Parts: sequence; structure tokens; C-alpha cells
Amino acid sequence: MTLKQEAEKGIITSEMERAASWEGVAPVYIQQGMADGSIVIPKNKNHDLKEIRAVGKGTRTKVNANIGASPYRSDVQEELDKLAVAVHRGADSVMDLSLGADQIRIREAIMEASPVMVGTVPIYQTGFEMSAASRDVAEMTIQDFLTTIERQAEQGVDFMTIHSGVTRAALNAMEKQGRHLDVTSRGGSFIISWLRKNQGQEAPLYEYYDEILDILAAFDVTISLGDGMRPGATVDASDRAQLTELIVLGELTQRAWEKGVQVIVEGPGHVPLNKVTENMTIQKSICNNAPFYILGPLVTDIASGYDHISGAIGGALAAMNGADFLCYVTPAEHLKLPSVDDVAEGVIASKIAAHAADLALGMEYALDIERTMAQARKELDWEKQISLSVNPEKARLYREESMVGDSDVCTMCGEFCAIKRLQETGNRKTG
Amino acid sequence: MTLKQEAEKGIITSEMERAASWEGVAPVYIQQGMADGSIVIPKNKNHDLKEIRAVGKGTRTKVNANIGASPYRSDVQEELDKLAVAVHRGADSVMDLSLGADQIRIREAIMEASPVMVGTVPIYQTGFEMSAASRDVAEMTIQDFLTTIERQAEQGVDFMTIHSGVTRAALNAMEKQGRHLDVTSRGGSFIISWLRKNQGQEAPLYEYYDEILDILAAFDVTISLGDGMRPGATVDASDRAQLTELIVLGELTQRAWEKGVQVIVEGPGHVPLNKVTENMTIQKSICNNAPFYILGPLVTDIASGYDHISGAIGGALAAMNGADFLCYVTPAEHLKLPSVDDVAEGVIASKIAAHAADLALGMEYALDIERTMAQARKELDWEKQISLSVNPEKARLYREESMVGDSDVCTMCGEFCAIKRLQETGNRKTG
Repeated sequence: MTLKQEAEKGIITSEMERAASWEGVAPVYIQQGMADGSIVIPKNKNHDLKEIRAVGKGTRTKVNANIGASPYRSDVQEELDKLAVAVHRGADSVMDLSLGADQIRIREAIMEASPVMVGTVPIYQTGFEMSAASRDVAEMTIQDFLTTIERQAEQGVDFMTIHSGVTRAALNAMEKQGRHLDVTSRGGSFIISWLRKNQGQEAPLYEYYDEILDILAAFDVTISLGDGMRPGATVDASDRAQLTELIVLGELTQRAWEKGVQVIVEGPGHVPLNKVTENMTIQKSICNNAPFYILGPLVTDIASGYDHISGAIGGALAAMNGADFLCYVTPAEHLKLPSVDDVAEGVIASKIAAHAADLALGMEYALDIERTMAQARKELDWEKQISLSVNPEKARLYREESMVGDSDVCTMCGEFCAIKRLQETGNRKTG
Repeated sequence: MTLKQEAEKGIITSEMERAASWEGVAPVYIQQGMADGSIVIPKNKNHDLKEIRAVGKGTRTKVNANIGASPYRSDVQEELDKLAVAVHRGADSVMDLSLGADQIRIREAIMEASPVMVGTVPIYQTGFEMSAASRDVAEMTIQDFLTTIERQAEQGVDFMTIHSGVTRAALNAMEKQGRHLDVTSRGGSFIISWLRKNQGQEAPLYEYYDEILDILAAFDVTISLGDGMRPGATVDASDRAQLTELIVLGELTQRAWEKGVQVIVEGPGHVPLNKVTENMTIQKSICNNAPFYILGPLVTDIASGYDHISGAIGGALAAMNGADFLCYVTPAEHLKLPSVDDVAEGVIASKIAAHAADLALGMEYALDIERTMAQARKELDWEKQISLSVNPEKARLYREESMVGDSDVCTMCGEFCAIKRLQETGNRKTG
């Protein structure tokens, strides 16, 4: 049985207990959410996972960091460094998006080293291996794909992005409407190649969805329904192609649940701020409250070099309105494969967004931190302020640059510190 | 006559024409907005201002950068470097918040060098000069303050933050309710010192508000009504002290308009994301649509070292919901006086927020940029992508680190670039 099937029978497993304990909620809350599909615990049966996390309704907003090599930059140690810094900065999961000759070795190393759940996009491996064998991904058979996911499932991958929603109907919708920027999903582009090459046939990942689910169910791999048709520009947001795919994702969510497979639904991408909330509520509605896993979203396309900020803006508003899982965006997005430093900056920006959303939702853990920080500031307790900060090392460095002798103030205001003045003038009730 | 008084008479001045031209709107739109108070053009009669900007309803969201020395770090050239980088990164105004022995010299240098409007917080000068003369700001007379604003107005300062809303009623509201973090506004803390020292008397900046307005009107200095009672912690947001002050700011707005003085109202500060929208709509309502100038707002207090990101999240949502003018927050906030690099990062983050909001509001200039960027990405036109980015230098550096030979792709996906694949498989209508 998968965890979802156990939850449906009313069984509270040790995974549910551990996830509940980390959240500070009752185990039965997690079990009931898993039974109705609004919560998942991505954990492969073959993976001895140290940090168990629930994702979904009523749980803390989670953050994923995409790491992995590319054909042009591939180094196992660099990827392990990215993993380490992502976890150090608070990522709840990593996805290994490696593409290239070293991808299997890199994934093995990441699976071995990661304390947090690991996700992949298996079609990258299929596509690369076909390319290495001088076959184009447009010639992919369902067997090529099933072989990949079975190998990755055996390896212990906890969740997999699978683009079964990229159907001929979605492609037709895009081509009829026209887009400023077509498709920027790498997995989505593979399927579109296939559809264009194989006229008159339906996409194999949709046609043989049941076969895919059977493999995932056997290992309790959570399916992360990819949104290959997500717009790649804010000016294309919420178009017919995106919504056509979303409706299919709703159907696929239900079919996965019927086979006991846990489901996360992926979402955009590039969404102007005025469309963020509607994107969240529509997904919840169409996909029966399955957890929503979003990439950013980026609220403008001018922020190359700073897309982590564009993504933090979108992610915070999205998570306040229903998104459960934020995929980070790094400063390198649209420009290059992220470095270790880019990974750190990306995780930190997403953690700020996730925390801001949880605070807005009134989650007690977030309120506690904010109250403690206010107290530390009131007491001019710099050590406590530093330790509560999202990146204590950076906060400490700035503070050290700002020491005014052994003073309790800083170079911003010095002796004119408002907090100090309020203390001195007596913070008493004067009526 | 002030610009507002001219606007009320239906006169379209050259300043209104220049501001309208920059916005791409009709001059009459600016004139009418100035007449009803929803738009300001901060420009001192004594200031030969190169870049004229309107702030308010229907205009592009503007960004301010706070610069200035402190008693512990004071260097004219460093402040001029901050000014230069702020303007280079797109700031629409700077505020010189210098405090210390060099403050007059620094302000003169900034006024001389700045192509954009300059604001100040005159009570800093009063407070510092009193302190230098061994007097506490709690002994301030209205004459001390009027002398300062007259000198600064003669110097050509375009807008001044004046904390006339910090009244005994607001202080009582704070003391009765209690706060996690009292007051963190430097100007606000000066007035509170005064109120605590001078029991039974009303704050002089409120009591002698008419005298203040007469000086401002003579030079057409825009008043920026300071929010000295703004909460300094998210857990204190939207409390009675803040709202008590806001109601006074509404009254003060009306009184300023009656004397022909242009008005901006300042707002928080530290506001959890779920309270951002209400803060914007309440201000507009209480202050009869006077332009709203907000600091951040920071949507969490855990982001020391990254408060520019916390502020960009709050600022974007705020500007989409009515804020007109964003005061940046730098990564140094809460830790030290910002460096030149911190100023740059702060402006960039706020520009992203401002642009995201203008895009969400459907402003044509913002849509144009987004459409052009989508086209540049579709064509893999890297030069155009770089030039459209908020910081072309950083975008170029990342791109150069990512060159795959003379290829048109990058190290993220290499030959597996989705955009390239879509091009190759034929972006045609297949029906």
C-alpha cells in the first residue's frame, strides 16, 4: 500500500507522525489530509529519508531548490555543494534536474547525501539517453519512458515531474491562440516535438498514464504533474493553452488518486501580480485541492539577474492564496546554470516568501518568530536578532561592519537610535 | 502661487507638461490630479530640477532612495556615490537623511548634484543641532523647527517629512494598548521625547501646523506627512496608535490643501502580507486620495540582510493596491548605514516591485517592456534581453559566464533549450 492508501484506511503511519511532529499538528490532521488528497508526504519506499515533510493544506509552505548539472557544466562535487547549501539555507526538498553524461552518477550522489526529499524530471534522462544514441526524443516510445521511471523509482526518487497534461488539445489551443513566447518548459518541449512529429497520435505520457501510475504506486513515488504548457512570459499568463492543460491535470489528479498515487500539481511560472490569486484558486478548484507546487511565479520579466526577487514577490502572494510548495528561482534564471552562491540566494528569497505567507495565514510558528524578533529589537539584543535572521552569517557580517565601539546601537542612527530613546524617555504608561 | 494653486485655477504649467510627457499622459490629466490632490509634483521654487516627476494616481509607481551620512559614518563623496548609483539604477527621488556635523555640507552637495527631486526630514537637523548645543530635542520650541525648515526650503529641498501627526492622542493610544516594539521612527521618537517631557502640552508640530504650512507654501515645498507612530514590527501592524495617527494625517492633508501645499502621506513600515491591501485602501479613504508613500512595507522581520526582498514583496502588493511612491529598503536595514552597493541593491529591488505593480495595473509602458522581452527571448536575442533587464551589467556578466562557444543557448539547457527546440520543430499552426 502507498501512504495515501493507508491514510484512506485510517492508518497513521510513522511517516505521518514524523511529519505532524515537525509541523506541530496532530497526526490525524496529516492522515485525513492525505486521505482526501490535500496533503502529500513524498517518500519513496526505497528511500531512507531523514527529514520527512508533508506538503499541502494547513502545513508550512515548503521550498524546493532545483540543482543538477547540464551538458556544459557537470561536476559531482559542485552539485553536492549546491545540495549542502540548499539544505543549510532551509530547502525542504531538492530536485536533481541533471542532464548529460554524468546524470546517473550525480543523482546517485545526491540521493546518498540528501537529508531531504529528492525529485526528478525523468523525461530529461530519456531525452538525453536517446540523444546520446542518436535518436530524437520525438521518436520516444512509452517503453523508453517507463524504463526510465522504473530505474529512477528503484533508485529511491521521492517525487517525479511527469508532463502527462501536455496533450494534443493543449498544443492545438496554443497554436490557435498564438503566444508571445510559445513553450519554455524543457519537458514540455520534448512532448511537443513528439506531437509535431507524430501527427494524429496522442501524447504517450497521457495515453499510457495508467502504466506510469502502476510503477509510481509500486514505489509510492509522488507524481508531480508537470505544466509543460505554462506560459514563459507574463504577457502569455492564464491563456487557453495553460488552462486546457490544467483541466487535464485535474482529470489526471483524480486518476492518480484512484490508484493510490500521491499527487502534487505544478503551476506557473510567469504570472503578473494581478493574476496570481486567480491562478491559485482555479488550480485548487480544478484539481480538488491537490497540493500546488509553483515555479516562482515571476511577476515581471525584466528581472534577469534578480529573478529570485521577482519570484519571491509572486511566491509570497501565491502561498498566501493557496500555493503549498514554492520552487525557488535563482538570480541565474534565464542566463545560466546556477552556481552554489546562486542556489543560496534563491533558497533565501523563497524562504522569505514562504515565511511571509505563513505569517499572513496566521501560522503560530511564524507569529512566534516575529514576536521574538520584535522583542530582540526592543532589547537591542543583536545576537538574538542575528540568530533569528534568514541568513545569520550575512546579518553578522553587516553587524560587525557597523559596530560603534562596544555600543548597543548601529551606524544607521548611532546615539539617535529611536529604540534607545524610547527606552530612555521611559516606556511607561503616562495616561 | 504653488503648483497646486495653479492647477486649481486650471493652469497647466511647464512642470505639469514635463511630468505628463515623461508619463505619456495628457497634461490635463496631471493638472486635474494636482487640483484634486491625488497627484503631486514635488519641486521647490528655488530648485532647478532636471527630472520633473509626478507622483500619484494613474502615474507610474515611483521609487525613492534614502541616502545620507550618520554621526558615525560621514563622507561627502560616499554620499554623492550613493546618489549617483541610485539615479543610475532608476530612483525617481532621493532623501538625504544625513545626521551629524557634516549634514549641511552633504545636503548642499546632494542638492547640487541631484538630477532628481530631493527630500529631507528636517527634524533630524533640529535634533542634531540641539544635541550639539547640549540641548535635548525634548526642549525643542516651534521656533527651532521653523528655523530649520525655512533654511532647508531656501536651500531648495523639494519635499520634507514632517511628523505633525504624532500627537498626544496617538501616544496615549500606543501606551494604553501596548506594543511589542514601541516606536522605531527616528523623527517619531523625537516628538515622543518631547511629549513625555512636556506633560499636558500638545506636540508643537501639530499645534503650530499652520505656521509650518506657511513656510512650505512660500517655497512650494511638498509636505510628506510622516508616520512617526508606524509599527516597527509586523506583530504590531494596523494597531490603534497607527490608525489614530492616520486619522490626524487625514485632517492635516485637508488643512495643507487649503493653504495650497502639496501633500504626500507616509505609511508603514512593517505589515504582514494579509494586511497590506487594507493599509492602502484605508489611507486613500482617510486622506482623500492623497498620494501614498510607503516604506517597504516589510512583510516579515526575519529578513535582516535581505530586507530589500522583504520590502519588494510588500511594495509590489501595496503599489498594485494604491501606493504611489515606494521608499526602498536596503539589505543593510536594521543592521547598519547602507553602503553604495546596498543602495544599488535596494533601488533595484524596489524598481522590480514598482514595475511588477504597474504591469499588474495594466500600464502600457510596463506591458510594452514585457512584450519586448518575450520577443527577445523567443528570438534568443541576448543583447536585447540584457538591455531590457533591470541591471544590464549583472545580466551581461552572468551571460558571459554562460557562453557555450558562440552558441545562441546557455549553460542551463544547452542544446536541450526549449525555445530552440520549439523553433526547430516548427512554430506553425498544425491545427
